[in-house]
Amino acid sequence: MENTLLQNINYPKELRNLTVEQLPQLAKELRAFIIDVVATKEGHLGASLGVVELTIALHYVFNTPDDLLVWDVGHQAYGHKILTGRKDVFHTNRQLDGISGFPKRSESEYDTFGVGHSSTSISAALGMAIASQLQQNEKHHIAIIGDASIASGMAFEALNHAGDTDASLLVILNDNAIGIDPSVGALKDYLTRIKSTRNDVEQHNIFEALNFDYSGPIDGHNFEELLRELNRLKEVKGPKFLHVITTKGKGLKQAEENQVQYHAPGKFDKISGEVLPKQASKYTKFQDVFGKTIVELAKQNEKIVGITPAMLTGSSLKFMLEELPERTFDVGIAEQHAVTLAAGMVTEGLIPFCNVYSTFLQRAYDQIIHDVALQNLPVIFCLDRAGLVGQDGATHHGVFDIAYLRCIPNMIVFAPRNEIELRNILYTAQLGLQQPMAIRYPRGKGEIENWQVPFSKIEIGKGLCLKEGENVAVLTIGTIANNVTKAIDNCEHKDEIAHYDMRFVKPLDEELLHSVFKKHNTIITIEDGTVQGGFGSVISEFASNKNYKNKIKIVGVPDKFIHHGTVEELQKQCGLDVASIEKQLQ
Amino acid sequence: MENTLLQNINYPKELRNLTVEQLPQLAKELRAFIIDVVATKEGHLGASLGVVELTIALHYVFNTPDDLLVWDVGHQAYGHKILTGRKDVFHTNRQLDGISGFPKRSESEYDTFGVGHSSTSISAALGMAIASQLQQNEKHHIAIIGDASIASGMAFEALNHAGDTDASLLVILNDNAIGIDPSVGALKDYLTRIKSTRNDVEQHNIFEALNFDYSGPIDGHNFEELLRELNRLKEVKGPKFLHVITTKGKGLKQAEENQVQYHAPGKFDKISGEVLPKQASKYTKFQDVFGKTIVELAKQNEKIVGITPAMLTGSSLKFMLEELPERTFDVGIAEQHAVTLAAGMVTEGLIPFCNVYSTFLQRAYDQIIHDVALQNLPVIFCLDRAGLVGQDGATHHGVFDIAYLRCIPNMIVFAPRNEIELRNILYTAQLGLQQPMAIRYPRGKGEIENWQVPFSKIEIGKGLCLKEGENVAVLTIGTIANNVTKAIDNCEHKDEIAHYDMRFVKPLDEELLHSVFKKHNTIITIEDGTVQGGFGSVISEFASNKNYKNKIKIVGVPDKFIHHGTVEELQKQCGLDVASIEKQLQ
Repeated sequence: MENTLLQNINYPKELRNLTVEQLPQLAKELRAFIIDVVATKEGHLGASLGVVELTIALHYVFNTPDDLLVWDVGHQAYGHKILTGRKDVFHTNRQLDGISGFPKRSESEYDTFGVGHSSTSISAALGMAIASQLQQNEKHHIAIIGDASIASGMAFEALNHAGDTDASLLVILNDNAIGIDPSVGALKDYLTRIKSTRNDVEQHNIFEALNFDYSGPIDGHNFEELLRELNRLKEVKGPKFLHVITTKGKGLKQAEENQVQYHAPGKFDKISGEVLPKQASKYTKFQDVFGKTIVELAKQNEKIVGITPAMLTGSSLKFMLEELPERTFDVGIAEQHAVTLAAGMVTEGLIPFCNVYSTFLQRAYDQIIHDVALQNLPVIFCLDRAGLVGQDGATHHGVFDIAYLRCIPNMIVFAPRNEIELRNILYTAQLGLQQPMAIRYPRGKGEIENWQVPFSKIEIGKGLCLKEGENVAVLTIGTIANNVTKAIDNCEHKDEIAHYDMRFVKPLDEELLHSVFKKHNTIITIEDGTVQGGFGSVISEFASNKNYKNKIKIVGVPDKFIHHGTVEELQKQCGLDVASIEKQLQ
Repeated sequence: MENTLLQNINYPKELRNLTVEQLPQLAKELRAFIIDVVATKEGHLGASLGVVELTIALHYVFNTPDDLLVWDVGHQAYGHKILTGRKDVFHTNRQLDGISGFPKRSESEYDTFGVGHSSTSISAALGMAIASQLQQNEKHHIAIIGDASIASGMAFEALNHAGDTDASLLVILNDNAIGIDPSVGALKDYLTRIKSTRNDVEQHNIFEALNFDYSGPIDGHNFEELLRELNRLKEVKGPKFLHVITTKGKGLKQAEENQVQYHAPGKFDKISGEVLPKQASKYTKFQDVFGKTIVELAKQNEKIVGITPAMLTGSSLKFMLEELPERTFDVGIAEQHAVTLAAGMVTEGLIPFCNVYSTFLQRAYDQIIHDVALQNLPVIFCLDRAGLVGQDGATHHGVFDIAYLRCIPNMIVFAPRNEIELRNILYTAQLGLQQPMAIRYPRGKGEIENWQVPFSKIEIGKGLCLKEGENVAVLTIGTIANNVTKAIDNCEHKDEIAHYDMRFVKPLDEELLHSVFKKHNTIITIEDGTVQGGFGSVISEFASNKNYKNKIKIVGVPDKFIHHGTVEELQKQCGLDVASIEKQLQ
């Protein structure tokens, strides 16, 4: 590839030496560069392709890094990374010790605010703008946020506050009508209406109502429009709002046409754009175990509904949407609403399965406590992507859920060891549960080929002995049991080691635990969540409360933020891979 | 009082036998009844007085409890309670074993959804409406929400979803331009503009934009307007929105004129309306210790800013607003935004003190993890009303914070034993802290008269020995230390009991703990937070990790929701009063 312009640009100051006429060529090269690397190294493709022109225009017009850009979510920031000192390391994207797939403060002074979760950019940029104002620093503060993210409550809170200030804040709405799945909600319909009528409704729209100086919609792939508007807005004081229309996946035909698949397509042919076949596997993703099982159950039990806050595809709830659309609810990026909606549904007799990634359920913590658990409403929370998630890194690991859920009264907290346990707990959950329940399971595939066995009820609060043994008892929760089984098998003294799958963090199988503490001298707890207040902590508390003196060793994710890499690499880092566990068992 | 109408009304069905012409008289009686009881029994006055007519009109027009009313927050639901079977027990409001100060499902079938925290009503009512629709139940579902609460992100999420459905949902905006403190934000300005122009802007307003059938604004104290609109809206399908203007405190002159004070005025003269003087005390509320100290510090350190999500008066941040308005931010009911705003401010060099009630910080859990702790930004969280709060009950106790915060990497978690410790940690926090810190302190007064002593720096992670002793060591965190001190004093064998104030839940003073575990056989941990994953759990983990075999007893709030009563009564219930602690020490 002949990167005649891009090869000489490492930082925005070099970009700013180009003429306006050269920018389309740079856009072409930048797009090709992204496609070239992501085709083999994988990552988030569509969002970054959609903002190539916008990214160039922002760094061209504004004086970054003194002027501050805050990218919402960060899926779209590859172009930004490449133009701000990371072109040469872009091929390490999302790899262990490589650059992060999201903006990250420790990586670059151009990454003003770390992201990963959505809808934080306006709050952060407003905080910066107020700080600049108080300190008499003349700067521009720019939040770039998508139409799916701006519909989340937090973004509204920030707009509502910003509109009441005279802070130097520019909010750019990157409107492509899609998040990971197509955007939903009344605001999305409204934006569609604005777009179809273009400039007729510039006055009195929703953003004007919130005291923003609104302009747009403009074509986000047209440099002339972008530069004209951004330059004009540099001179406008106070909170202002630029509505930019872009196409997710722009410049790669397949990515434009299959926007959901090309959000993060895996490896693809950079010329034809065709996604390369994934390595065949006889195993099924836990996501699909959930998605297929809930369809089976919902067909038998008409009270079942499925809810997801904008993770239809990721959670595989899309299977239910396809078959039972009237009972499947994608509520958009609205975790808080999703949880309380589910609570409301329970009060009128439905059985809601609320599927939220573990890390995103942090957004609805109060609703779990205040609206669900306090009223003891049996909402079923399916916590997808619990534990270490791999390449998405620190913002996405689901490692706090055991600690933050087990302190809530009335809550059942369960983790399936395998696909069949997941299937059976989903079955159990809809058989007249009297309490809320959280079911945490990991990203990725399990290890059982034929998991579609007849349903069997799981007794709430009952653990299992997976292997008898003498001196040492290993207690696990969830799929980390598989590493433990392998580690025990590798041990010379394997006869001495027992293995229990406790299954329930709460309620605790106290009967089983009493027998464990009486039978074994040493107890080792192993979990893929934080060691602070997690499952091991539960066992320590039990020992204190029951006055047991056994030796207890707690193994889990250490008390620090874990960055990105493959799950296997990160497990090794945390001492949770087979070899490390084996060492713990010596 | 001659309750000629009210005395015969115990349930809405009796109310519905009245003629329209009788309703103003009933309103007068209901208002008088509320004033009469609250004057001596205390409680939330202003909000309920403001919705007397609306409450009557709703139960008159709709067929409750089959039609479902969801009151947001619930401060305004006294009239509703009195008209739905609880007139005779209304004098037990907020007392131990009496009725709750908020709607509560276990109390009445008319209380369709428990509340306390704001902005949940639209989500809950929409969940009910969707459930009714799926089950072919013809019902009305009505959320009544204030203008401060509707500006919170969660409410926006629910509106955004509802507007995309054809659910039978009526959202009533009870617009009185005030929450507990006057409402803030761009939406409030917008609502003010709508009100001033009345019907001119009915089309194309913000709620119309979200696909709601909007009507209003109407006078919420005028039965003719209320009944006409509610009856009309009964026939309108799909999501609809009624904008009602009310006056908080309506009908009691002082309450109308001093709306902040009369939100919950304490005892007052029911004839003159004058608030009765509170019992004189030489002690200061922890809130005022915070409020006065932050002013002192902010005057010396211009980087300090104060942030509150709508708790200016409750948190005493109002002192800072009075003296340093440009550095004091009431962002409205927007905990999520408040936290990430603070994080943004830190990146540009400010030192934000973000004051949020412990129970409300649950709303910003993800932002604490993702925006603050992951980036290790030294935001200072002041967690007001930590521990048991008393009469506000289960929705308001701050008992989960230790458990949900201590699992977050980088976080410092501190609890002051007294006013001076609070003062000194606030001082310490602004001396170049390198990590985020949470400072949890209770509602109400301390026990030190002269707390305004010169500042002294607290070493991060250092606990204190309060009393030497031999066999038993009591470890405490926060102000519960005072009960422990008294309990030890009452013990015959007090010489045997040592007392340590650990101060920091995190980082733990491991040096001190090693000496404690070596010196004492029995360790008793005492905290006013949940025993599940709390401070006692930290100590158990420490013992497991360091292989100590001491006997450990964990005392704290048990693993169930604690209801309302005085703090003293609830402490007794939880085994945290002086007498119960004394028993634990035997």
